Amino acid sequence: MKLQDVGEFGLIELLRAKLQPVDQSVVVGIGDDAAVLSYDAAMNVLLTTDMLVEGIHFREDTIDFQSLGWKSMAASISDIAAMGGIPKHAVISLAIPPSYEILKLEQLYEGIAEIGRLHHTCIIGGDITKTNGPLVISVTLTGQTEQGQALLRSGAQVGDLVFVTNCIGGSAAGLACLQSDRRTLLTPDQQIKLLHFHQRPQPQVQAGRILAGSGFCSSCNDISDGLASELHEIASASGVSIRIEESRLPIDSSVRNFARIDGSDPVNWALYGGEDYQLTGTINPLGYASVLTEFQLHGLEMSIVGRVVQGTGVLLERLSGETIPLAASGYNHFTT
Amino acid sequence: MKLQDVGEFGLIELLRAKLQPVDQSVVVGIGDDAAVLSYDAAMNVLLTTDMLVEGIHFREDTIDFQSLGWKSMAASISDIAAMGGIPKHAVISLAIPPSYEILKLEQLYEGIAEIGRLHHTCIIGGDITKTNGPLVISVTLTGQTEQGQALLRSGAQVGDLVFVTNCIGGSAAGLACLQSDRRTLLTPDQQIKLLHFHQRPQPQVQAGRILAGSGFCSSCNDISDGLASELHEIASASGVSIRIEESRLPIDSSVRNFARIDGSDPVNWALYGGEDYQLTGTINPLGYASVLTEFQLHGLEMSIVGRVVQGTGVLLERLSGETIPLAASGYNHFTT
Repeated sequence: MKLQDVGEFGLIELLRAKLQPVDQSVVVGIGDDAAVLSYDAAMNVLLTTDMLVEGIHFREDTIDFQSLGWKSMAASISDIAAMGGIPKHAVISLAIPPSYEILKLEQLYEGIAEIGRLHHTCIIGGDITKTNGPLVISVTLTGQTEQGQALLRSGAQVGDLVFVTNCIGGSAAGLACLQSDRRTLLTPDQQIKLLHFHQRPQPQVQAGRILAGSGFCSSCNDISDGLASELHEIASASGVSIRIEESRLPIDSSVRNFARIDGSDPVNWALYGGEDYQLTGTINPLGYASVLTEFQLHGLEMSIVGRVVQGTGVLLERLSGETIPLAASGYNHFTT
Repeated sequence: MKLQDVGEFGLIELLRAKLQPVDQSVVVGIGDDAAVLSYDAAMNVLLTTDMLVEGIHFREDTIDFQSLGWKSMAASISDIAAMGGIPKHAVISLAIPPSYEILKLEQLYEGIAEIGRLHHTCIIGGDITKTNGPLVISVTLTGQTEQGQALLRSGAQVGDLVFVTNCIGGSAAGLACLQSDRRTLLTPDQQIKLLHFHQRPQPQVQAGRILAGSGFCSSCNDISDGLASELHEIASASGVSIRIEESRLPIDSSVRNFARIDGSDPVNWALYGGEDYQLTGTINPLGYASVLTEFQLHGLEMSIVGRVVQGTGVLLERLSGETIPLAASGYNHFTT
């Protein structure tokens, strides 16, 4: 049996079965954005890790190394944000081809340091080795949440509202813009805005903190693999169905504009593009108004895109009024 | 400038310069076996990470995948042991060629789980991705020590004794045995003993705990790159010189025996072989007897191999009585 036969998630299940049960210090283990660990009475420690491979996750023709450093850290910070946590300390390992240009690695670290400063996140160690293959970047990040406040995937309740922070689909639009000759039809400002969505995503740490502190947020994921995939994870972990409306998806006008120029579907970018690093989840209707007010006080946006209902899976109400099942497949490394 | 021009340690310095200063939550950052983090008043959190690349760190013809899993975790557990800590929670990421045999990865995880059970260390997450290059394994492990008790590299004092736990040189002997036709001159039991030194190293968590609890251990490293390299790190970090005697190096009789058969130098294996995952460090002479007693109560061995003196660098007194400077070079990925 080869890896390509079972896929990424199939392999995770196979390997997970090999491991021993965890002890009581593990509040949440494998299967959420980050693990939740109980090290002392007041605060939980969060732990998340991501691996990026050149040629698979990034290519030099669509991202510069400083942005790559930013984005590598952003993905991990976003996992902590999705738990409602504060990012704290990172270790970064690199496997590097011997003939690699050092300047690129220095630029990578400039981007890592740039977003680290913004989020008060320290790089405190790592490992460097050579490889005969492509550049591999591994980022592991700790975080903290108040005891019992971590936002999980599994708490969505029938009747809860489904939210999305700020806008989605921008990262896919930025990538399409980079790869399309039609980008010259945009002004430089419009191009830069789309590029930033793709290359400099903003992890939503403050939104996660507000949601966790409210006591009304019943589930949360960050949008790394696309909204459809994230909502499927929440529905499955919570044992509920989620129903969203196409008309309510928060898609920036710059994204809609370029989709029109490019002949692309902005809703497809929003549902399946991924790498937006916004948060999605569910919130008790009783808490919605107060959370929205606090979001607005901090210059954050939140859209209600649907509702939690009984059943399984995720449904999409199209603009036409037709309701269809929404496939999960955002991005699965081994089967797409 | 290429990576091969500056080497692993040169690159680390270049990249480190890009990072912001750490905040007061970081007790020890880059530059020891593990980082030390202050998350609450009683206990410090330790964090260490290692990356292994197929063809660089391991090859299928010298290690089976279950042993590889064991050894990958052993390296990280050993880093926590070298800080005097208790290993706690691990995240493991894999970059996998699509045509890789799943059975190998399952065996890898069996080995990871096996040593994890022994040390009560839970695997709580990870990331899996494909790669067009070799298999890459990244292990990140947390640990805990009592506040202020972490064993650093930087505390060696003139007059302290230099210790080594158990025996060294066994991993290099085991590798040589695997690669030598002369291994058939050993009994099966002798071969298995040497193979175990190489494939199933035993991280010295209990030794580290005794040393940290004693209050007399002034510095500590685990022997991953060879005794010479580890002692150079301690001498440099502490601003002292270390003088060791060849006649005192603890080398198992099975290692000496195979060295004779193989025409190899067992002292070379002990000083430069690495991957023994024993501990070396310095101890105040006032505490030596009590620590030794506690070691013996737990079936552990400790040898005094030398002494801390004024000056810089590491000196070796040969059997002949001649004293020579001991080069640091154990294993540097980019320059050997």
